[in-house]
Amino acid sequence: MSEQNDTFERQLANWRDLTLAEINATLPSREPRRHLYDLVTAHMSRAGKGIRPALCIATAKAFGGEEANALPSAAALEMLHNAFLVHDDVEDGSELRRNHPTMAAEHGVPLAVNAGDAMNALSIRLLRRNLPLLGAPTAIRVYEEIDALLVESLEGQAMELGWIRDNDMRVSASDYLRMTLKKTCLYSFIHPMRIGALVANGERADLDRFDRLGFFMGAAFQIQDDVLNLIGGRRYGKEIGGDLMEGKRSLILAHLFERVCGREAEALREFLGRSRKRRVPREIGWVYDLLRRHGSIEYAQQASRDLAAAAVEEFETAFAGTQDQEAKQFVRQILNYVVTREF
Amino acid sequence: MSEQNDTFERQLANWRDLTLAEINATLPSREPRRHLYDLVTAHMSRAGKGIRPALCIATAKAFGGEEANALPSAAALEMLHNAFLVHDDVEDGSELRRNHPTMAAEHGVPLAVNAGDAMNALSIRLLRRNLPLLGAPTAIRVYEEIDALLVESLEGQAMELGWIRDNDMRVSASDYLRMTLKKTCLYSFIHPMRIGALVANGERADLDRFDRLGFFMGAAFQIQDDVLNLIGGRRYGKEIGGDLMEGKRSLILAHLFERVCGREAEALREFLGRSRKRRVPREIGWVYDLLRRHGSIEYAQQASRDLAAAAVEEFETAFAGTQDQEAKQFVRQILNYVVTREF
Repeated sequence: MSEQNDTFERQLANWRDLTLAEINATLPSREPRRHLYDLVTAHMSRAGKGIRPALCIATAKAFGGEEANALPSAAALEMLHNAFLVHDDVEDGSELRRNHPTMAAEHGVPLAVNAGDAMNALSIRLLRRNLPLLGAPTAIRVYEEIDALLVESLEGQAMELGWIRDNDMRVSASDYLRMTLKKTCLYSFIHPMRIGALVANGERADLDRFDRLGFFMGAAFQIQDDVLNLIGGRRYGKEIGGDLMEGKRSLILAHLFERVCGREAEALREFLGRSRKRRVPREIGWVYDLLRRHGSIEYAQQASRDLAAAAVEEFETAFAGTQDQEAKQFVRQILNYVVTREF
Repeated sequence: MSEQNDTFERQLANWRDLTLAEINATLPSREPRRHLYDLVTAHMSRAGKGIRPALCIATAKAFGGEEANALPSAAALEMLHNAFLVHDDVEDGSELRRNHPTMAAEHGVPLAVNAGDAMNALSIRLLRRNLPLLGAPTAIRVYEEIDALLVESLEGQAMELGWIRDNDMRVSASDYLRMTLKKTCLYSFIHPMRIGALVANGERADLDRFDRLGFFMGAAFQIQDDVLNLIGGRRYGKEIGGDLMEGKRSLILAHLFERVCGREAEALREFLGRSRKRRVPREIGWVYDLLRRHGSIEYAQQASRDLAAAAVEEFETAFAGTQDQEAKQFVRQILNYVVTREF
């Protein structure tokens, strides 16, 4: 088991390195460095584990594609993910990301918004490399996948930001899951697999087979992420309780909203409605208490486990008939990794 | 002359309407409306004169292309322009745009950053309509033009924001012109004409012929815009003196930087280095005085006139051998309009 894990970690690191090399080859090596490209390079040097590119490359290989043919798409997905993160941190007012000040905290909102835009543009530029590799028809199909995930993700983000802005306490578990499908599942899980299959099989690929698996994986992942944000964990690189400080609606809060009433509901609404700077640690303690009393965190942990189990079951359907068992096994390990991680 | 102007205004309005109709047809008519698409629709309902799309369509027609074939590119350019404006206003902290609160002022920075991202994504989506219209090779070339202008514009914006952030007083006229080429000329003038020619003549189009004309037009336009920001004018929809409040480096300031010294230079540095909120009207008055004494505004007005004259001369070279004299005349009128406008 440990040997298998070592192999997994090595492969993950290897694809992460190839992805970052592909990204670096597209980053313009010219001015303005100090106010643009240095920011992008520094951000990418702290890039995460590279789950999205690995998922794309492994899916391509599982269905008989070449690693090299998946690299530009994998790199575009990773760059796009990081562009989202830069703007997310601006929108959420977050100060910490991967144990380091966010780009906005370090360089100010104006340069961070602009650098995020540039990362976005460069991720689309990466897709041009697909033209000679995959031919125009398939390259254009990949582009359509990226186009779909971009707009859906921004819609999901608008839902989440809107709930905070309206201090909406009617957000239900189903609203949350719809938002998560848009904001997390599509770009982190569903489209990386769809694009991998496209790279392997072009126009003939059956793409919808990944949709349910990606939803279960993404929802399990996001709910677990929300839980970790509240209770912390080994190597968790973000501010503990940051989501609460931002008033972010999670499955945990949706559970709580259904259960609180009267003065408790009013106090919660008052807390969530205040600006980040006017929330004090004592009150955060009170909200934790409330969550404990209503079992909202345990509820979310159970939901994440249930979704993870559904993903494991769905996996065999989505990856039926693959040609490369090793690559298929790798995706299975990503699934494990994503839903059981505690960092 | 007045009749000619009427025809020009009618054609401009007509292409603006066609462009907005093309954009509206691409805007998803679904949720989330209140926190995303309603913001985009409201912003586009206050869209400007539509100079960029008109320049693209008229250039296409001048070189023998069809209006209908230029519409998706024209719409993408207009949408992209508006996406830039939304993020620009966030980055500059501007509160007024087209006599209306900016999206960030009205809906907050988080929703404005996100809606700008969505407008960006939708402008790229508009380009997909070129595939059936122009065929894949030309559609891909148009996309490459957009890719180039996107990255260059964001580089130009980084230069400008960086100068403000560093409170840089070494910015020279040549630095300013290089920034303006990137930030204004390429996306507002050079690429709209290049793309128009591509729409007309596909792979065979000679695109570089527009580069000098577009630079002269764009620089004349931007310098005039900077002057109007200081002195106001009929129908000028932005905050008068707003650029000064933001510490924005202009040709006017570059001229002044070369002339002030000693205590005056120190006072100017101190003024420009303060945050927007800590600048008071009395000091603004002092800076105006300084500009008057050193003739910096007159210098910029003269530079704008010189560049406009260079554009007029260059026009005949860039539009030599066109097939449609009416469309060519229209571009000539845009040139007039852009460099002599006083709104």
